[in-house]
Amino acid sequence: MTNLNHPEDHVDVLIVGAGPAGLMLANWMSRLGIKTRIVDKRSTKVFSGQADGLQCRTLEIFDSFDFAHRAWRESNHMLEICLWNPDKDGVIRRSDRIPDTIPGISRFQQVVLHQGRIERFFLDSIKEHSNITVERGVMPTSFEFDASKAADVNDYPITVTLRTLTEEEATPKQQQATNGAAVSDGLFRSNLSPDDTDDMLRAAELDSRANQTQVVKAKFMVGCDGAHSWVRRQLGFKLEGDSTDYIWGVLDIIPITDFPDIRMRCAIHSANAGSVMVIPRENKLVRLYIQLQSTVTGGGKADRTKITPDMILKSAQCILHPYKLDYSYCDWWTAYQIGQRVGDKFSLEERVFLAGDAVHTHSPKAGQGMNVSMQDDITWAGSWPMWRRIAQDLIDFDYRFSRLFSGRPAKDVMDEEGISMEEFKMAFQKGNMFASGIGKTTRSLLFDLTQSDHIETAVDYGSSLLVAKEGDSGEQGDGTDVASKDKSLRVVSKQHLSTGISVGMRMPSVKVLNQSDARPWHLQELLKSNGRWRVIVFAGDLSNRENFGRYSHLGEKLSSPTSFLRRYTPPGQPIDSVIEVLTVHAGTRTSIELLDLPEIFHPYGEKQGWDYWKVFVDDESYHEGHGKAYENYGIDPRRGASVIIRPDQYVSWLGEVDDYEDMERFFSAFMKPQSQLAQKKVPVAAEVSTL
Amino acid sequence: MTNLNHPEDHVDVLIVGAGPAGLMLANWMSRLGIKTRIVDKRSTKVFSGQADGLQCRTLEIFDSFDFAHRAWRESNHMLEICLWNPDKDGVIRRSDRIPDTIPGISRFQQVVLHQGRIERFFLDSIKEHSNITVERGVMPTSFEFDASKAADVNDYPITVTLRTLTEEEATPKQQQATNGAAVSDGLFRSNLSPDDTDDMLRAAELDSRANQTQVVKAKFMVGCDGAHSWVRRQLGFKLEGDSTDYIWGVLDIIPITDFPDIRMRCAIHSANAGSVMVIPRENKLVRLYIQLQSTVTGGGKADRTKITPDMILKSAQCILHPYKLDYSYCDWWTAYQIGQRVGDKFSLEERVFLAGDAVHTHSPKAGQGMNVSMQDDITWAGSWPMWRRIAQDLIDFDYRFSRLFSGRPAKDVMDEEGISMEEFKMAFQKGNMFASGIGKTTRSLLFDLTQSDHIETAVDYGSSLLVAKEGDSGEQGDGTDVASKDKSLRVVSKQHLSTGISVGMRMPSVKVLNQSDARPWHLQELLKSNGRWRVIVFAGDLSNRENFGRYSHLGEKLSSPTSFLRRYTPPGQPIDSVIEVLTVHAGTRTSIELLDLPEIFHPYGEKQGWDYWKVFVDDESYHEGHGKAYENYGIDPRRGASVIIRPDQYVSWLGEVDDYEDMERFFSAFMKPQSQLAQKKVPVAAEVSTL
Repeated sequence: MTNLNHPEDHVDVLIVGAGPAGLMLANWMSRLGIKTRIVDKRSTKVFSGQADGLQCRTLEIFDSFDFAHRAWRESNHMLEICLWNPDKDGVIRRSDRIPDTIPGISRFQQVVLHQGRIERFFLDSIKEHSNITVERGVMPTSFEFDASKAADVNDYPITVTLRTLTEEEATPKQQQATNGAAVSDGLFRSNLSPDDTDDMLRAAELDSRANQTQVVKAKFMVGCDGAHSWVRRQLGFKLEGDSTDYIWGVLDIIPITDFPDIRMRCAIHSANAGSVMVIPRENKLVRLYIQLQSTVTGGGKADRTKITPDMILKSAQCILHPYKLDYSYCDWWTAYQIGQRVGDKFSLEERVFLAGDAVHTHSPKAGQGMNVSMQDDITWAGSWPMWRRIAQDLIDFDYRFSRLFSGRPAKDVMDEEGISMEEFKMAFQKGNMFASGIGKTTRSLLFDLTQSDHIETAVDYGSSLLVAKEGDSGEQGDGTDVASKDKSLRVVSKQHLSTGISVGMRMPSVKVLNQSDARPWHLQELLKSNGRWRVIVFAGDLSNRENFGRYSHLGEKLSSPTSFLRRYTPPGQPIDSVIEVLTVHAGTRTSIELLDLPEIFHPYGEKQGWDYWKVFVDDESYHEGHGKAYENYGIDPRRGASVIIRPDQYVSWLGEVDDYEDMERFFSAFMKPQSQLAQKKVPVAAEVSTL
Repeated sequence: MTNLNHPEDHVDVLIVGAGPAGLMLANWMSRLGIKTRIVDKRSTKVFSGQADGLQCRTLEIFDSFDFAHRAWRESNHMLEICLWNPDKDGVIRRSDRIPDTIPGISRFQQVVLHQGRIERFFLDSIKEHSNITVERGVMPTSFEFDASKAADVNDYPITVTLRTLTEEEATPKQQQATNGAAVSDGLFRSNLSPDDTDDMLRAAELDSRANQTQVVKAKFMVGCDGAHSWVRRQLGFKLEGDSTDYIWGVLDIIPITDFPDIRMRCAIHSANAGSVMVIPRENKLVRLYIQLQSTVTGGGKADRTKITPDMILKSAQCILHPYKLDYSYCDWWTAYQIGQRVGDKFSLEERVFLAGDAVHTHSPKAGQGMNVSMQDDITWAGSWPMWRRIAQDLIDFDYRFSRLFSGRPAKDVMDEEGISMEEFKMAFQKGNMFASGIGKTTRSLLFDLTQSDHIETAVDYGSSLLVAKEGDSGEQGDGTDVASKDKSLRVVSKQHLSTGISVGMRMPSVKVLNQSDARPWHLQELLKSNGRWRVIVFAGDLSNRENFGRYSHLGEKLSSPTSFLRRYTPPGQPIDSVIEVLTVHAGTRTSIELLDLPEIFHPYGEKQGWDYWKVFVDDESYHEGHGKAYENYGIDPRRGASVIIRPDQYVSWLGEVDDYEDMERFFSAFMKPQSQLAQKKVPVAAEVSTL
């Protein structure tokens, strides 16, 4: 537990809550060198239960922070969804198999891993890259906001008092009660239980040992403190939405069963006994989401005292009949009432923000909560206003999906109260597309699912300062006009130059080879989350004179002492420290020598010689096939294209190889030349977020 | 540093030396639960320099211990070898490119990583699986062997006194001298420097602080204590072989150069200035092996005082002319005199063994030392007598290769003193094949190199108790007859049932899908080094009635209360704890339900239900293609085959799916029924090694 030794502290960012949303944000800050503190009222991280699905986009983000491989190795991989429905005699039968992650959409697939492990990866990553440590057993107890200071980005409008809790206070009551018990009871964090924040606060104030306090002044604050967010309460914001009558139980067990698809993700609709979702997990565990028939509440809160693991199991047994289900090991269990709620506001003066469950809650079965919570943050640095639409999309999807899943299957087309299983399957597929966080970006990579055009897509940023596309930013975003006020600065992408890369969406990944050592890399592996912007030059086939001319022309412009590359790079820093230029050419690897290319594309350093890690080629590898980058990106190798990519891997701009002027205008709309920044050590990404 | 608190200790295995060979052995022991101690006279592990090539077979072994991914991520991957030779004007030109690892031979390729990191992976792995810790600054000072106790496997014929060194003594003199210096001087461990073992020993005896001693009684001892092995000296064994006149320098630098292939592995022969080998490494480093012209010794020891990094660099500059080479950062450097030596004996009464450099030394450029040293151990548990031939093969290869590499290129076919570059290229390719540790096993997987039939192969065990193949074990091994004395017990494989799996060689790997969750796995990933034997049943297409009949017949035999499966499994232990049965069938995944297969192939446990991790299928995956296991293994899906695999992934036996009697005879030739083992907790693998 922290000692709040100094009476007052100043920070750039104060994060309240160290669940996945708070940790992801702290992790981002650890890479950008921003002065950050993160506090959590609990004394420990979670050890069992809790959210655990990781979508492929989440794994891509983890990889940009260098720890996707840990999640990938330890997790259970879900490959196939089996749909089970009643046959004409009312007996459940497997009616369909669909891939869990759409083939071709990502180099990762959806996996399942316990939240405690994921928090561990974040903690290790934060520790490796910064001095930020999670201060546990620490609660904010007062909040003041001085609006007059909000205009100056360097001022501290936020004042928060932090208070240390005792070990006992910081441990949730029900967790204490079950210490040493075989089964971990998750009800205390369920929405069926009252929040204990007030209890903890009261106890802290009364307890004489808990008298350590500290005043923290912050430039920014982010509330990642869950559905009962203390930060949200200070802001006076509301979660809007409602609960349903449906109560679901959750069991994490090692199943003993003759149900054949217990290691597949399954959606099982029984004729009259309700539904079960099967989520196979690591360490032989399976998570079952089980609809509880006996607890339909008729609009009110359910009585949680009646809910036990045994009664949840009995419900599952009825639904799975004639298959048998039992267990001798239960790792965790809980129950919850389905509801979808989304915040009425997301920020106070763009200085205090909400993220994760603090601003959107929904049912866990869609497997999205943790993923969207974490992705809130990844987008925070550049583009918080777009959250709102994405959060609303999630809530809308969840609302439809939950009702489809909780409903009784239709007996036939005349059965209007029943749920059409065809509709359910379509919703499931749409959900997966949404869940991937990727959507239409990779439309050209889809080869298995011809219905992909019908799928509404996930994260697709509207036009803004940071996303140069056609259309009106107000319509595409949340109603806030985030495009440049100065129309002369507005840059519009030439989307027709690539059918596989979509401005506003994440850069899809294919394999390319390093020109210098022939090693294959997934292009995304080159786009680490270290705060850098990237210009990727798809130079085309450089044995074509015209292509080489365009590429050389761009090289000259970039090399100029007044180029945007030099203008935004702090003096004395490597030329790639703010904007990194990568090349992917389309000829054969052996037809080109790196040192024949313009120097700016493989910069020279006095101590390290040439840079061998900037030029790549779309060619056959020795051991891992041919990435077919140009084909997959839909870029003509006789013409090429250039792409600007944000630090979070989203595509900002697309144009001709040598559209230097557009690149220049794009960056100058929001970046500040280093000469103006004087000696302030503010990373560029932080500047961006305040525009 | 250890406190040798108790005056006497008893261990199963005492390992002297904690380099890669010693650590690999300790790691094996950590998985088998064998009481082991490992001591090293040095106070720390190495931090720079030292051997660093990892062959693909070594990575396969690492993967069987669950840490290949760490090496794979951190290392530099070498994909291509570029050969540079003088053109007709004597100017060096790139004359050829060849793949560094033969495509298709393994799922890994050759990589380069600093030995210190590899030792770290071993240390972490040992710690995770056992209480074994490396005792540093501890030296054996006396050795006694009581031959009368060697007959009883449970007796302790070995008595060794261990003595604690002080921190100062345990730090090599030259390492002390360069502490704080920018460049790490590796000469002190080179064969140009006298050994300091005696100095350390003398110092230890004199120093009053170094008076902690302990007597250790051991059943087995293994000397992994390097070229100057103390253990070898106690045994009175000799290293036989000789040195050459060639002196080579080694530089680990970040190169500043216009040589185009500096990030490729290169073999550069200049016309008259000597040769350079380029080994690109992690962290922008490149290792250069540089032939030193000015130090040809004429048979004697070279004068190492004349060797400096600057003079090594100058030699490299001459060889690389007209390209420029310089550096501003040097991480490590050394020099050595080429020589190849191999031990005259490998063991004393099969109780004391030598491994690694203690028993074979050679030049580092072949990139084999650490790999063969580590593989010594992996084969130790089951089959130490085969070392000898492999070590001799390595030495022979190295001898030819070193001379080819150190020689001057032939000017033309009339130039008899010069080296033919064609011959050199062939040798290089053979070397890679040898180095892979795989050789002809995967002949059917080779599609790029049609000359593969000409390549002499690497580890291919001769006939023995543990390798059921035709021919005479004496001829195939080292002259020791290791086949069963009882001819009626001799089992011979039906090699014709598979063209891709070779008895005596390591099991090649292809992807198969788990029947229960559709997840693709490389077959080798299922063969973890946990001491288990495996029977893999390639059941063929199970929709074929005859195939299903054979498979069911085998299932019945295996299920019988007297089957070898039950007979060698300790009472109360899971049925797969000594011999694990895996199935790979050839139908489609969806045509089979796991629970329709005989129970023994997916055993039921009262607490964990059915085992979902034993049955696999050769079918198309959603995201990773089709492994084509039957095609690659050359097994007829209409007939199938069964394979017995040793705990170290080598193939022992191959026969018909339901050749139960041959399997039974194979195991009964060396395994002891659990009833005879009474309550002794001796792992089966240890029993095996003493037969």
